[in-house]
Amino acid sequence: MKKVNVGIIGLGTVGGGVVRTLIDKQAIISDKAGIAVSVVKVFDSDTRKARDLHIPQGLIASDAREVIDDVNIDILVELIGGIQPANDIIIGALCNGKHIVTANKALIASYGKELFEIAEQLGCSIGFEASVCGAVPVIKILNESFSANSIQLLYGIVNGTSNFILSRMALHHCSMKDALKEAQARGLAEANPKLDIDGGDACHKLCILAMLAFGKFVKPGEVYVEGIRQLDLQDMIYAKDWGYDIKLLAVGKRISNSLELRVHPTLVPADHLITSVKGEDNAVFIKGDMIGESMLYGKGAGRTPAASSVISDIMDISRNIGLSGTSSPFRIRKTEGILKIADIGDLVSRYYLRFLTIDEPGVLAAVSSILARNKISIATVSQIARKQGQAVPIVMLTHEAKESAMNKALKVIDRLPMVKAKTVRIRIEK
Amino acid sequence: MKKVNVGIIGLGTVGGGVVRTLIDKQAIISDKAGIAVSVVKVFDSDTRKARDLHIPQGLIASDAREVIDDVNIDILVELIGGIQPANDIIIGALCNGKHIVTANKALIASYGKELFEIAEQLGCSIGFEASVCGAVPVIKILNESFSANSIQLLYGIVNGTSNFILSRMALHHCSMKDALKEAQARGLAEANPKLDIDGGDACHKLCILAMLAFGKFVKPGEVYVEGIRQLDLQDMIYAKDWGYDIKLLAVGKRISNSLELRVHPTLVPADHLITSVKGEDNAVFIKGDMIGESMLYGKGAGRTPAASSVISDIMDISRNIGLSGTSSPFRIRKTEGILKIADIGDLVSRYYLRFLTIDEPGVLAAVSSILARNKISIATVSQIARKQGQAVPIVMLTHEAKESAMNKALKVIDRLPMVKAKTVRIRIEK
Repeated sequence: MKKVNVGIIGLGTVGGGVVRTLIDKQAIISDKAGIAVSVVKVFDSDTRKARDLHIPQGLIASDAREVIDDVNIDILVELIGGIQPANDIIIGALCNGKHIVTANKALIASYGKELFEIAEQLGCSIGFEASVCGAVPVIKILNESFSANSIQLLYGIVNGTSNFILSRMALHHCSMKDALKEAQARGLAEANPKLDIDGGDACHKLCILAMLAFGKFVKPGEVYVEGIRQLDLQDMIYAKDWGYDIKLLAVGKRISNSLELRVHPTLVPADHLITSVKGEDNAVFIKGDMIGESMLYGKGAGRTPAASSVISDIMDISRNIGLSGTSSPFRIRKTEGILKIADIGDLVSRYYLRFLTIDEPGVLAAVSSILARNKISIATVSQIARKQGQAVPIVMLTHEAKESAMNKALKVIDRLPMVKAKTVRIRIEK
Repeated sequence: MKKVNVGIIGLGTVGGGVVRTLIDKQAIISDKAGIAVSVVKVFDSDTRKARDLHIPQGLIASDAREVIDDVNIDILVELIGGIQPANDIIIGALCNGKHIVTANKALIASYGKELFEIAEQLGCSIGFEASVCGAVPVIKILNESFSANSIQLLYGIVNGTSNFILSRMALHHCSMKDALKEAQARGLAEANPKLDIDGGDACHKLCILAMLAFGKFVKPGEVYVEGIRQLDLQDMIYAKDWGYDIKLLAVGKRISNSLELRVHPTLVPADHLITSVKGEDNAVFIKGDMIGESMLYGKGAGRTPAASSVISDIMDISRNIGLSGTSSPFRIRKTEGILKIADIGDLVSRYYLRFLTIDEPGVLAAVSSILARNKISIATVSQIARKQGQAVPIVMLTHEAKESAMNKALKVIDRLPMVKAKTVRIRIEK
């Protein structure tokens, strides 16, 4: 039986899961794949981690370099995350002719192109299934299963923390703050939840999905990002009344030669399949010219779901080790630079708007005439009466309008004396 | 650029889609894969088909043998379906050293083991993604993405025709007969719909899924199969009242060393993700020890969805052509024979029961005492009063009971003088 040796750097949640699985399930995995995969060296800067995982002393390296330079290692698995030292580790290992498996979304999103170019030159493969949506094999599916398709659209619920918070607000009618506290109590959100709830994590994942779905390398800074921090429970309740749920969507949409890439809270029709994705689960909805509509759903994070994806990458690469030539399914396309990233100002969308105004005669007239002047037409409006002179919300759904026109209109509206707070604006997807 | 030559036998719906896509999208596909795939020969016994597809005359073979024996062909794509002559064509092509891509579920379900053994001996690959669930890449995912998992459970909505009929009955409150007529009018059901609505098609697909998920070759005759033909609208309405939908599920469940494999109408809780799969769409819900719960959803049939899967197989095999040695991800496991297929009599399930009885004193007592004698306990019961002496349904949900005990009880109940028709029994999945 073919033998493949693996080195692992980073023994945190995912790394620990990978090591234990490769050791504990070695017989099952080799029966399925016909390949004996062995962990031959591991490293983590926190030396307790290897001990806690009961890894035999002989497998524990004293620094990362020892793993990178081990000539017996075929595949180096990088699971420390972040840009550095992960980038140096991967480049070092590639230069030593090793294949790479990583779950590092920040690194692939930011420096994927450079890494894939180096790997291609050196005849090595980089597996990164675990970098997006944990156990959901969206990387492989976009890259291999749907390879004959021109992908027109993808909607991703790719950040489990945000989806947990939104699901909880909708179900328990609680505030964002309380839902976040609950997520933290369950270990689903970090003490500083910025990367999750401000959309940065979803942005990294969208960059990777865009590279696969549309053949375009996109840097995180090129994506329009809006998180869920400012969302208010009342918006979820209004949305629900009108037949919508609010989800933090990562949207990728091809419109002729331009590419919309955006992460923001979105009103989605409550009967759309993606709204049935609740709690910390992830899903990616994909529309292609041949497949029509498709959706992948599963666990987005956690020790064993992510480890499952890391090991599937290890097995894929292992099958090809020892064969002449490389057969990595991911390639940088010749057409890579053709699509242009659309400016968010050019977006055409329907909108949910909530104005917080003083309840006095002429308010709705003022607001709606400013919208009309900017060619924004109102589809539905709801104004709940309060005591005269008190602040009340006017809530509306618009027909399709241009984002730049909406920005202009809201700038004027938010300066009106009867408008008491910044207008809430949420985009709608059909 | 690497060149790969493809021959195609069968130019029906799927075959036509494959040929046209390979010709029309050649530039896009080769840019993505770095391989130039060319159709070099096609055959269909109906010669008009090649003409209607505008295939250049020089590519049209005058018999299947011409394709099988063409030394320039690397991959033979078999899309005629059915056992023969498909089996002979595939074996002939394998013996000529060609790789195979097929969408033939009946053949893979019935003779998969034999074909994979021949392919393994000859160092050839067989791709069969399009044999189950059209565009849904469940074959690849079970075989590659989830390969480190022990799969515990799968639920498949794998027959689009049945799911369309059930969805339509539920939505429009129409009869099975009317829903079937509508399916036929839309081209979703054949004039003779037996294979779809009696569960045979779902059974073939379950055999293939079982081979991948559980590493066990199962012949169609070993699967318990019950179709949807006998389903009545009133059962869907009763089920709905109790929070369930009725779906034709293909169920695979591992319970220690035995394997439940069954296709039958099933009550599924209305809030389960799989009940959101409506119309002719397909989905497979998978539970594994590492991934947790996962679901794949998409188009189950049709020209371009199936062609998309066929082409993904062609690309996968193409990547490995010319490399030394084979690297097919599908292997017959050493542990293949270990799992035993469970007898349906040993199933432990909750049940939905509808008794059609004369409304007279003591009926419910008689029925329930027979159930009790067989250790079947009732969870919920509903009896709608009619005029005394008329037939009325008694509908109930039971707690968990053994199938063999249920069979015994129903045999006795159906012989009671006050029971006017065969009792309807539908299994429940949680």
